[in-house]
Amino acid sequence: MPTSAIDSLIFRDIFGSPAMREVWSDRFRTQKYLDWEAALARAEAKVGLIPREAADEITRVCKVENIDFEAYAKETVTIGYPVLGLVHQIAHLCRGDAGKYCHWGATTQDITDSATILQIKASFDLIAKDLDRAIAATEKLARKHRSTPMPARSNLQQAVPITFGFKMARLLATLKRHRARLAEIRPRIEVFEFGGAAGTLATLGEKGLAVQEALARELGLAQPDIAWHTERDRIAEAGCFLGLLTGTLAKFATDLKLMMQTEVGEASEPYAANRGSSSTMPQKRNPISCCYIHACAASVRQGVAALLDAMVEDHERSTGPWEIEWITLPDIFTLAGGALAQACFVLEGLEVDADRMRANLDATRGLIVSEAVMMGLAPKMGRDKAHDVLYAIIHDPAMGNKSLAEMLLAREDVMADLSETEIRRLTDPTNYLGLSETMVDRVLGST
Amino acid sequence: MPTSAIDSLIFRDIFGSPAMREVWSDRFRTQKYLDWEAALARAEAKVGLIPREAADEITRVCKVENIDFEAYAKETVTIGYPVLGLVHQIAHLCRGDAGKYCHWGATTQDITDSATILQIKASFDLIAKDLDRAIAATEKLARKHRSTPMPARSNLQQAVPITFGFKMARLLATLKRHRARLAEIRPRIEVFEFGGAAGTLATLGEKGLAVQEALARELGLAQPDIAWHTERDRIAEAGCFLGLLTGTLAKFATDLKLMMQTEVGEASEPYAANRGSSSTMPQKRNPISCCYIHACAASVRQGVAALLDAMVEDHERSTGPWEIEWITLPDIFTLAGGALAQACFVLEGLEVDADRMRANLDATRGLIVSEAVMMGLAPKMGRDKAHDVLYAIIHDPAMGNKSLAEMLLAREDVMADLSETEIRRLTDPTNYLGLSETMVDRVLGST
Amino acid sequence: MPTSAIDSLIFRDIFGSPAMREVWSDRFRTQKYLDWEAALARAEAKVGLIPREAADEITRVCKVENIDFEAYAKETVTIGYPVLGLVHQIAHLCRGDAGKYCHWGATTQDITDSATILQIKASFDLIAKDLDRAIAATEKLARKHRSTPMPARSNLQQAVPITFGFKMARLLATLKRHRARLAEIRPRIEVFEFGGAAGTLATLGEKGLAVQEALARELGLAQPDIAWHTERDRIAEAGCFLGLLTGTLAKFATDLKLMMQTEVGEASEPYAANRGSSSTMPQKRNPISCCYIHACAASVRQGVAALLDAMVEDHERSTGPWEIEWITLPDIFTLAGGALAQACFVLEGLEVDADRMRANLDATRGLIVSEAVMMGLAPKMGRDKAHDVLYAIIHDPAMGNKSLAEMLLAREDVMADLSETEIRRLTDPTNYLGLSETMVDRVLGST
Amino acid sequence: MPTSAIDSLIFRDIFGSPAMREVWSDRFRTQKYLDWEAALARAEAKVGLIPREAADEITRVCKVENIDFEAYAKETVTIGYPVLGLVHQIAHLCRGDAGKYCHWGATTQDITDSATILQIKASFDLIAKDLDRAIAATEKLARKHRSTPMPARSNLQQAVPITFGFKMARLLATLKRHRARLAEIRPRIEVFEFGGAAGTLATLGEKGLAVQEALARELGLAQPDIAWHTERDRIAEAGCFLGLLTGTLAKFATDLKLMMQTEVGEASEPYAANRGSSSTMPQKRNPISCCYIHACAASVRQGVAALLDAMVEDHERSTGPWEIEWITLPDIFTLAGGALAQACFVLEGLEVDADRMRANLDATRGLIVSEAVMMGLAPKMGRDKAHDVLYAIIHDPAMGNKSLAEMLLAREDVMADLSETEIRRLTDPTNYLGLSETMVDRVLGST
Repeated sequence: MPTSAIDSLIFRDIFGSPAMREVWSDRFRTQKYLDWEAALARAEAKVGLIPREAADEITRVCKVENIDFEAYAKETVTIGYPVLGLVHQIAHLCRGDAGKYCHWGATTQDITDSATILQIKASFDLIAKDLDRAIAATEKLARKHRSTPMPARSNLQQAVPITFGFKMARLLATLKRHRARLAEIRPRIEVFEFGGAAGTLATLGEKGLAVQEALARELGLAQPDIAWHTERDRIAEAGCFLGLLTGTLAKFATDLKLMMQTEVGEASEPYAANRGSSSTMPQKRNPISCCYIHACAASVRQGVAALLDAMVEDHERSTGPWEIEWITLPDIFTLAGGALAQACFVLEGLEVDADRMRANLDATRGLIVSEAVMMGLAPKMGRDKAHDVLYAIIHDPAMGNKSLAEMLLAREDVMADLSETEIRRLTDPTNYLGLSETMVDRVLGST
Repeated sequence: MPTSAIDSLIFRDIFGSPAMREVWSDRFRTQKYLDWEAALARAEAKVGLIPREAADEITRVCKVENIDFEAYAKETVTIGYPVLGLVHQIAHLCRGDAGKYCHWGATTQDITDSATILQIKASFDLIAKDLDRAIAATEKLARKHRSTPMPARSNLQQAVPITFGFKMARLLATLKRHRARLAEIRPRIEVFEFGGAAGTLATLGEKGLAVQEALARELGLAQPDIAWHTERDRIAEAGCFLGLLTGTLAKFATDLKLMMQTEVGEASEPYAANRGSSSTMPQKRNPISCCYIHACAASVRQGVAALLDAMVEDHERSTGPWEIEWITLPDIFTLAGGALAQACFVLEGLEVDADRMRANLDATRGLIVSEAVMMGLAPKMGRDKAHDVLYAIIHDPAMGNKSLAEMLLAREDVMADLSETEIRRLTDPTNYLGLSETMVDRVLGST
Repeated sequence: MPTSAIDSLIFRDIFGSPAMREVWSDRFRTQKYLDWEAALARAEAKVGLIPREAADEITRVCKVENIDFEAYAKETVTIGYPVLGLVHQIAHLCRGDAGKYCHWGATTQDITDSATILQIKASFDLIAKDLDRAIAATEKLARKHRSTPMPARSNLQQAVPITFGFKMARLLATLKRHRARLAEIRPRIEVFEFGGAAGTLATLGEKGLAVQEALARELGLAQPDIAWHTERDRIAEAGCFLGLLTGTLAKFATDLKLMMQTEVGEASEPYAANRGSSSTMPQKRNPISCCYIHACAASVRQGVAALLDAMVEDHERSTGPWEIEWITLPDIFTLAGGALAQACFVLEGLEVDADRMRANLDATRGLIVSEAVMMGLAPKMGRDKAHDVLYAIIHDPAMGNKSLAEMLLAREDVMADLSETEIRRLTDPTNYLGLSETMVDRVLGST
Repeated sequence: MPTSAIDSLIFRDIFGSPAMREVWSDRFRTQKYLDWEAALARAEAKVGLIPREAADEITRVCKVENIDFEAYAKETVTIGYPVLGLVHQIAHLCRGDAGKYCHWGATTQDITDSATILQIKASFDLIAKDLDRAIAATEKLARKHRSTPMPARSNLQQAVPITFGFKMARLLATLKRHRARLAEIRPRIEVFEFGGAAGTLATLGEKGLAVQEALARELGLAQPDIAWHTERDRIAEAGCFLGLLTGTLAKFATDLKLMMQTEVGEASEPYAANRGSSSTMPQKRNPISCCYIHACAASVRQGVAALLDAMVEDHERSTGPWEIEWITLPDIFTLAGGALAQACFVLEGLEVDADRMRANLDATRGLIVSEAVMMGLAPKMGRDKAHDVLYAIIHDPAMGNKSLAEMLLAREDVMADLSETEIRRLTDPTNYLGLSETMVDRVLGST
């Protein structure tokens, strides 16, 4: 039975999706190895390095269902690297002497690196799709709640009013930046590896570059300008993207779990029967997805540091750092994909309680618009004086349950500068939304 | 098919042992949940909270083979937490009304935390055993090579001579410190959890502490002084230990892979047919285990940071940080166990090439004992002068392939202070081992 | 002007204390280097390696105020290591030929490692003192609020009642564990270094161990069993302790900033005029210390990973990893000390609003004791039925602003099992504190 | 005296450059605060929000030399945030009533975030310049050593020949990717902040966006589409870039320190008198810069994780995560700049020992071209047979000090397939450089 959280029969669907798990599974990786060996054979046949029939035969057998995984695993542990055991099986499967042309001129890491890139490419396709979903759902929330007032919070203190749409637009702008980042980095990352033992393609004589060009077409990946066996910036950059993306998701999850607090209650995760329920405390409504997003992001960011560590490779093929990637990549792609899926689920079904938002806005009886009042008084009595007046009111024990408006109306110095109508207007939180709605429109209108 | 490196059919035996994987598997964890529920029932029966027959019946059914994992997984994903779905199954399995006494007064985290501690305990048993193996093998190497001379290296430069036994004794001293650490932290960590929803055992009335005491006896774990649902220092401390241990193993692996270099060749990993072999470069002898130790250690140390992050929990039961542990613990225990197993394999079969060590010691034709010569000259001509003499010789283009002894013998100022015999003695690296052997004895003699 | 946050003229007193900064300052470290050189000279004089007069003279000049820091810095950058430039200055300061006996048989890292240990020792003294302060303040809070009821929160949802004293006792238990840890690790860590170029003390002939013994007495540090130039478990262990300690402080800070929320308002940081004030929002009361504790802890935990990385050293004296410590240690000790000082400030002056706690306890009109009611009904109607009854009430739209007691009183099935008096008792949160107070007493009574 | 390594009088020029330190110093940051306040005043005057004379007066006084740092530091610690104390000083410095228009409508974080961006911008200018230097130096090395043969190493084992130019070209390709990355991320990152308390610019009425537009022109930074007080992807992205860059530098440093080993000696850091020298071992030539690059990179990557952690902010202005940046940014920019400066120093003065490279290539007497021989034999006898022949020779005890050529010449089965001339050609390492030179040309020719 599995050990890791992402494979656990019990937890795997919490921390990752079946589609992403599949991409990083033994099967998918092995099939990509085989695809690569077949593509190499065809590319080499095209330039006349090996017979075309051999390439056809190699292509025919390079199917994961032909592989004896137990034998393959055993040979991998013996040798210490995963490819050779596979090549042996393919070679044996080939009819005639085609097998001896398999893996021609390649080194283990050519195959594994290229497969890793194919896995990253497939993962990025999944992430791009879910990022679009998250963006669409966030746009919908920003648009719908463009004018839904709620308290902004600074240092977890009610600060001034905003709209919930503004909050969502801020998230939306960040998600769009992530989409732009992903589009930028993919062409740089999606490059195959084929260099032979030290990257010089010495086994191929003069035909090395021609094979590379043919291989690029076969694989749908870009040709490297030079071997990158020990230059791992592309891999680490992919990890950095995941760190940035999950950082944003965790920020959203933080906001939501704070809004779901019993004492706040402004929004909550979509409800499904028994979801987040407690066996003995039926009144609770736990933020389940937020918890998982938080945990996934925390793990991914440490994985980023691990991948940066893995860049510190030695010479032409490294002695340990590379293997860090073997451990880290399946984990962080699965967890990042899992966090994004949880975020999509939440964003698409988010329950927003506009009444509670409004009630919270009124909870301080006008104090949340102290700034508005101060800015209203400032042109009349100067900002410092205005600040002192507000400060005095707020710390006046007489305030008790009185509203800020009542306190202001009771002060002669204030009434000398402002009419009751002005005070009523200034102390109504919905009159102090600033550019909340304008900003929503700006972000919705941007690409 | 699995996704993570530690579950991968291909890689799992590289990065972890079957025994450690088993401890962190779904099966083991689930059985520990069941053991806990059964132990709780017996403890509660003992103090009269629930009928003894109910406890017997609950105990009878609490076997992992009774569990329908698919249903359990499904319910876990729905609820968002793993225990309730299991309790439902147990309750249904019980004859009569025993099921309704199951999980009495407990909260999900009581079970999962206690199971985690039982998993840590079982892991520490495995680690303690392998640590003893590593210590025994290192002692043997230190003893055997107590007087085998080799070059010490500082900044990767040959510095002065040591013995290989000295190098091993230094490792041995550290491994013994790890053994002492493990013995110290285990009693602090191996404490169960049972506090109910917020740690107050409110559902048990006055009998809470009595149940805890009985439960301690049932589980073989210590009773907590107070609930630790959101005080995770114990878990993080376990992680720190793994970080320290694997740090030491990676240091050893670093030394070994440097010694295995083609240009150095002083020691190597045990040879097994095809291990570390290359398909096209049969002359290579790759340091396989060292690579894996390096990668495991790099992952574990970031896992330590993740566990320290998981300490930052909110209130009585946390909202996200706890789940970091779910992801991290199986990974780092498996990887640390894997690194330790690889280290044992290497230490027990290490191939030491004393001839090559000796040859390397002579490679600089005496320069490696410049310090010895300088210390020999210092009392005669002063240390500064002595340093200048040596420095001049070393940078003298005339040195070429001459030995340091030849150069010294050719200098009048030196011959004025030292006889040829003294020069021959001072320039023989084996006469400058210092306290290498004494230090070996000291460490072998310590506990 | 300084660059780092811990040296910044503006920020340094936020992130660290003057005392801790001093310990990690250039001056203190340099003085420790000088103390070490003087101690070595005396130790070597004692065993007859160098003249007693030389030792006296070296001791006389080894004062930091004698050092020309500019020249020392310049020589350090040239050589790349800090000690030699200092030794040159001392030697020049010495009258007669005493200077030539300075640093006899030592290597740079002997001095720097020993100074690091002396800095760690001085830091641990400071931390131990502040930890005692934190423990005393927490004990006081636990005792005073032993019976002050408040809502426990699980997943940021009100769960069941606890007392604030219980919350503090849980923290107290953890702080005491940290005190125990510190006491355990100090003897293992506070060990000096003296081994010469490769740890064999080759320059000292047979007198190496005797010098070490004398040096131990001079320095007040333990003698190593073997050189630990490249075995850095002690240093990393010190870092792990800081990670554990600050993790706990950040957990407390998290709780407090949540309790300080406008909507919660149960406790707050001590007030000082203008502390945490806003220029335009005078109603705010920002959790200043909590923010800093959070940030310090986040930095320290990554520093722990860096120190674990620094363990991966090569051969007898390492090529890069060691320097990680130079960067990390001053930072994490200062930041950990800073976080602890902030925590002491907060704990000693914490403002607790028992009325608001009580009001929050009543905010759900009894729902917070659903569990109590369920446990009260369970023996009568079975736990499942009881759960269903509560669940139905909670999700009954008719509940509106009614209390749980009212809803229960209106149900025939409930009234069949419970009297109104029982219902009133069960729905009063202060009757459901469980063992809160007992647990406080247990923790206060433990060492 | 300073505490941190980057401010230490002794170490600061090792870990950072004066120029980068200045950018992150109190003085520079404070001047940027003042620049921002002056720019805001002018922008607000332009749109008619405040009098033009006030803007002029504010601009006049906003000079860092006008600031009383002691008073400013004191007020910062009292309040807990850095800006207000500064605004008070500016206001007092202003003649007439101009002071009251200072900081109009701004929140503390508007200033600090904008200043941070200006610091990042200035840092990126410095890094871009040094990155160009590194690229130029690497190009020169690649070109000069396009055809200098040396052993490639895989798993620290000699593998096949390459040229040193190939090794440099691989680094060059990566450095160019970093240059491309930097160009991509700068426009996204170099965006100012101005949103007021919650980002809605509520204090500015309808003129908020107009002020932002004017401010963009004043600051030379882009206008944000929406406030990003708690969306920190830009800052973390800057950190990720530093992590990627230093990862590459550390990989180069790793290669170089391995090449500087006594037993390898193929290249070394530029020599300066006493640089890397040892007081007692004059024969050593320590890799100083490589050590520092290694340590800086290790610290930066943990800083990246800290910045990703800092993304997890709450609501509109965060409670702790933001302050992580205060600690991390000065450190990682200084250290990354320091590592890059060390790399430039090394690359520009690198000493390459082509003779030693050649000697090492011959050290295995032809084994390094086993692959070449095998590929030469393969078309004749089949690849498996060829592999077996080579394997047999290599493990033949009779080989001793014989060369691979001699062994091949002695075998009938080989001589049946290859002539002596062919064997001589195949066993000459300089005939097996593959596309080393072609690859150098490719990379030199790319942008």
